[in-house]
Amino acid sequence: MKYDKKYMAQMNKKAVLDIIRTKGPINKSEIAKLVELSIPTVMKISDDLTESGLIHVVGKGESNGGKRPELLGMISNAYYMVGVDIGRSKTIAIIMNLNGDIIYKKKIKTGNTNPAIELLERTTEIINQTILESKISINKILGIGIVTPGLIDYKNGVVIFSPDFQWENVNIKKHLGNAFEIPIHVESSNRAMALGEGWFGAAEKSKYFICINLGHGIGSAIMEKGDFYRGNSGSSGEIGHITLEKDGPICDCGNRGCLEALASGNAIAERAKKYINDGKSTEITKFIENGINNIEAKEVFDAAKTGDLIANKIIDEAIEYLGIGIANYINLLDPDLIVLAGGMVNAGDCFIDKVKESIKRRQMKFAGTNVRLEVTKLGMDAAAIGAASIILRKIIENGGNTSKRRKKNE
Amino acid sequence: MKYDKKYMAQMNKKAVLDIIRTKGPINKSEIAKLVELSIPTVMKISDDLTESGLIHVVGKGESNGGKRPELLGMISNAYYMVGVDIGRSKTIAIIMNLNGDIIYKKKIKTGNTNPAIELLERTTEIINQTILESKISINKILGIGIVTPGLIDYKNGVVIFSPDFQWENVNIKKHLGNAFEIPIHVESSNRAMALGEGWFGAAEKSKYFICINLGHGIGSAIMEKGDFYRGNSGSSGEIGHITLEKDGPICDCGNRGCLEALASGNAIAERAKKYINDGKSTEITKFIENGINNIEAKEVFDAAKTGDLIANKIIDEAIEYLGIGIANYINLLDPDLIVLAGGMVNAGDCFIDKVKESIKRRQMKFAGTNVRLEVTKLGMDAAAIGAASIILRKIIENGGNTSKRRKKNE
Repeated sequence: MKYDKKYMAQMNKKAVLDIIRTKGPINKSEIAKLVELSIPTVMKISDDLTESGLIHVVGKGESNGGKRPELLGMISNAYYMVGVDIGRSKTIAIIMNLNGDIIYKKKIKTGNTNPAIELLERTTEIINQTILESKISINKILGIGIVTPGLIDYKNGVVIFSPDFQWENVNIKKHLGNAFEIPIHVESSNRAMALGEGWFGAAEKSKYFICINLGHGIGSAIMEKGDFYRGNSGSSGEIGHITLEKDGPICDCGNRGCLEALASGNAIAERAKKYINDGKSTEITKFIENGINNIEAKEVFDAAKTGDLIANKIIDEAIEYLGIGIANYINLLDPDLIVLAGGMVNAGDCFIDKVKESIKRRQMKFAGTNVRLEVTKLGMDAAAIGAASIILRKIIENGGNTSKRRKKNE
Repeated sequence: MKYDKKYMAQMNKKAVLDIIRTKGPINKSEIAKLVELSIPTVMKISDDLTESGLIHVVGKGESNGGKRPELLGMISNAYYMVGVDIGRSKTIAIIMNLNGDIIYKKKIKTGNTNPAIELLERTTEIINQTILESKISINKILGIGIVTPGLIDYKNGVVIFSPDFQWENVNIKKHLGNAFEIPIHVESSNRAMALGEGWFGAAEKSKYFICINLGHGIGSAIMEKGDFYRGNSGSSGEIGHITLEKDGPICDCGNRGCLEALASGNAIAERAKKYINDGKSTEITKFIENGINNIEAKEVFDAAKTGDLIANKIIDEAIEYLGIGIANYINLLDPDLIVLAGGMVNAGDCFIDKVKESIKRRQMKFAGTNVRLEVTKLGMDAAAIGAASIILRKIIENGGNTSKRRKKNE
């Protein structure tokens, strides 16, 4: 890191833009106080940002004796970002404005993930359609964020390994770079989800938080002072694969007794299937929509709500392991907040309350004493909003420079 | 954070000092390249540091055609730091120089930890004796770092809670501030151990590492880019209290099945005691020095080395849980290095190798792929060296300003 004037100027610009984005409408002297800069410096920066078309005067504040001060705010619709969440079953593409509002959304079935090239062509298609149907000029779109499950090389835009998609070394950025001239960034869905919650969701005021994706599998991302904690090889956050039963059931990863093999949506469905195949008496069968081989956790949750004993037993055991896994995370990382997200959150308040109780039972008495437990505020759009936020974050970080275009595949 | 000229100057000074400390002897143009500063700026900074008496010219480098360049290095014995590790059984006080060398060391029994005031008076005494016997002038000593087990409020120098010492809210800084005029910093032994390994031990080249203290209990500290990752409430790193057996043995913390209750030195000793009391046939009894109620893990390790079946069973089970606990940590945090430290490391290479194998068996295939597993290079002095390093780190961080003195208890 070079601590020179250019770096200093960019950091200051970033700080001012960040304050306007998060605390605006706000007047210049308040900004100066918050970012510890002189008022003339703030005036110079806000002039630049006004010229870039990112901020404007939104009104006047209270007078402190003299003239009423101008209040500055982001121009929400000055620019837009595309966010694409390629999920196991559905792909969501959104156009988001600078305020985190979804302006347009399109949802399709993901379909076959192999060959990867065909899925990426469908993805290009949905991005084009979304932009077209939104009627927003491509010149107003700052970039495209694309997220998938798996281990990602975000610098090169490559999916290194995705067990869900059965992908190894799929270069998303290269493929999509042929179709678009705007910047493209690739990230893991778990990290995008966390970023979405951090910027526009349940974790807006948090410094160290963990977002846990409870779905078919179980993943997570760690956020530290607004940034991803990726770890050394980029694989941090694999809570789904911590061992909680040394001789437990075999997991997709090859190990035994992983949290994912004990408490994920898939684990719940598999356990229900086993009970049914063993001929146990349960009402779960009444809720199954697509045959016993395609049983889903949702159906087990539905049966549990009617009081079915087997369904409740399966879910209570999953809750116990979720509590242990998350409490272990808290004991190690001491975050200020845990955000629970993903499909299992749809099981409702009663499930969430029980998970919280289970965590509290297993948490060390003097560790993570003030940790809050919250549920996603962005629901099933969290990863798409996060994907778009990756682009927004780049713009804020470079002090509001929106001019970056490139030749195709550059 | 205020990104102004003063901040920039201090950051640059810190960067230059850090490079000289870690890469010296080194010439000015190499420094300039590494810290991305101009050569005149580096010359100005190195003049300042020379004037403060922290660095000097140690020789001349190879010529690149012109004059042979001067090589700069730290003056190892320009200043010293005191490091005090108050442990469960022993207290170690050291005088360390700027190079991390122990110049003088004193070791006493810690004795009763209550009343705390008496232990702190003995601590004051040992510090005074150590300084006196080392024959180093107090004017050359930059500060005192003191570490204890437990949860620490490092800003105020208070032990919030130490189960080992049965302390709550003991203000070490205030007590010792009456006796010394130099800066005093208080930290947890686990964090100090990690800092020691990071600056002068097994983790010198690491970016994200975890130092695990395997002793009577089990603790750890997380280091991120040379800094402590403390977490939100300061309790991060409680690996001893992650649950690995939901219905396992009761732990001192009140929960069940914690790693510490399954695999710590204390757990190993307790299990041996139980086997002996149950009348099982074992050679462990032959190694016990202070009666069965005071059995120690070392005695079980010694018996295991002679091939005793019960001793080996106890240790193998502990190893399996250590592997699971540490693999879980790797799956969540993806560090580049795990340093194993503490008394259990003395059990020898065979034990360490088995722990490594156990970790590898439980680690997720694609997570933490390049993580290294090392053993402490500082042995039982790690925490004392770390305690002294806290002071050294402060000096480097403020760009080499060694002038800080204060009135007693200020």
